[in-house]
Amino acid sequence: MSQKEISKAVIKRLPRYYRYLGELQEAGVERISSGELSQQMKVTASQIRQDLNNFGGFGQQGYGYNVQYLREEIAKILGLDRIHNIIIIGVGHLGQALANYTNFEKNSFRIIGLFDNNPELKGKVIRGVPIRMTDEIPAFLRENDVEIATLTLPKEYAIEVSKMLIENGIHAIWNFAHTDLNLVVPKNVAVQNVHLSESLMRLSYNLKTLEEK
Amino acid sequence: MSQKEISKAVIKRLPRYYRYLGELQEAGVERISSGELSQQMKVTASQIRQDLNNFGGFGQQGYGYNVQYLREEIAKILGLDRIHNIIIIGVGHLGQALANYTNFEKNSFRIIGLFDNNPELKGKVIRGVPIRMTDEIPAFLRENDVEIATLTLPKEYAIEVSKMLIENGIHAIWNFAHTDLNLVVPKNVAVQNVHLSESLMRLSYNLKTLEEK
Repeated sequence: MSQKEISKAVIKRLPRYYRYLGELQEAGVERISSGELSQQMKVTASQIRQDLNNFGGFGQQGYGYNVQYLREEIAKILGLDRIHNIIIIGVGHLGQALANYTNFEKNSFRIIGLFDNNPELKGKVIRGVPIRMTDEIPAFLRENDVEIATLTLPKEYAIEVSKMLIENGIHAIWNFAHTDLNLVVPKNVAVQNVHLSESLMRLSYNLKTLEEK
Repeated sequence: MSQKEISKAVIKRLPRYYRYLGELQEAGVERISSGELSQQMKVTASQIRQDLNNFGGFGQQGYGYNVQYLREEIAKILGLDRIHNIIIIGVGHLGQALANYTNFEKNSFRIIGLFDNNPELKGKVIRGVPIRMTDEIPAFLRENDVEIATLTLPKEYAIEVSKMLIENGIHAIWNFAHTDLNLVVPKNVAVQNVHLSESLMRLSYNLKTLEEK
């Protein structure tokens, strides 16, 4: 099954399907029609059918979707059918918040390393993971199977640290620093930027637009 | 100037322009052509011209954009030309991280209230703001000019708390809880959802797609 033609918009919606199906599963729902799913998610039923058809369908006419099966299939598409080891670089407030976030584990992500360049943090432990110094990263990457590096550090360090990570075999960066890493990393490295300030600015814009109505 | 026709995609890009122009300003750059801006942001020059034309242009043929002026105009469009007061509800790790985030202030956002339902947190102070109990929110909203409520609380509480906030005059919610509030709030309330897990899942998908190449 070639996934190359799947649009970004569909990929963007998949984690949402995954979340809703998880909630249905928790509520004991075994199957659901695209119509019911559509009502809950406020997406048209035809959009749901179209989205899921990208991956070969999964639905049966007149039966609907098997919730558990569909969720498992989406998990496979998203790569959640196995554990991804993560390291966090920059253990300030945001880095600590992510290190303490147990929800990731439900979704197959496991934080196995924490790094900072502040010697005062050295040896402090968060949920069983000790904070190490940034210069220990290359050795850590050689000894551990790490897939994703999370950057919660000031933007001044982001590019330099990214280069070091990529040289040491990292292919996925979850970037919270205020800079667009995808402009500087090679094409064979996946980057997701989370720019919290920008999200807040969009909220400010939407609020302003509402007030002008 | 009617802003009703401006597409979501353009609005999504504006904070990024704002950030880049801020970096240029810090670097002492006074004016820039759409061509140069395009090279830095990896967006086509014609896209930049098109985007900014939505708001009446700002550029002069053969001169380019005045960096400070353009940034100020974008700030006005985004509603950043005045201070927005914010409260945070749920002062767990993520709430604390946001409360400690000084960057918001540079962009006209000021955190003036912190709330939690854990009595052990009562009276603890973060950057000058004491943590209050959730049941104090209605009185606080009557006495203070609050525009944005940030939800960093478990999803079980998110809907109930949102309703209370809206009844007490809040029109903008910045939602980190794992639920889509825009499905339940009225149309005159602006919501921005930040679903960190979903961003991580998209990264996992992109990584998987790279590996399959």
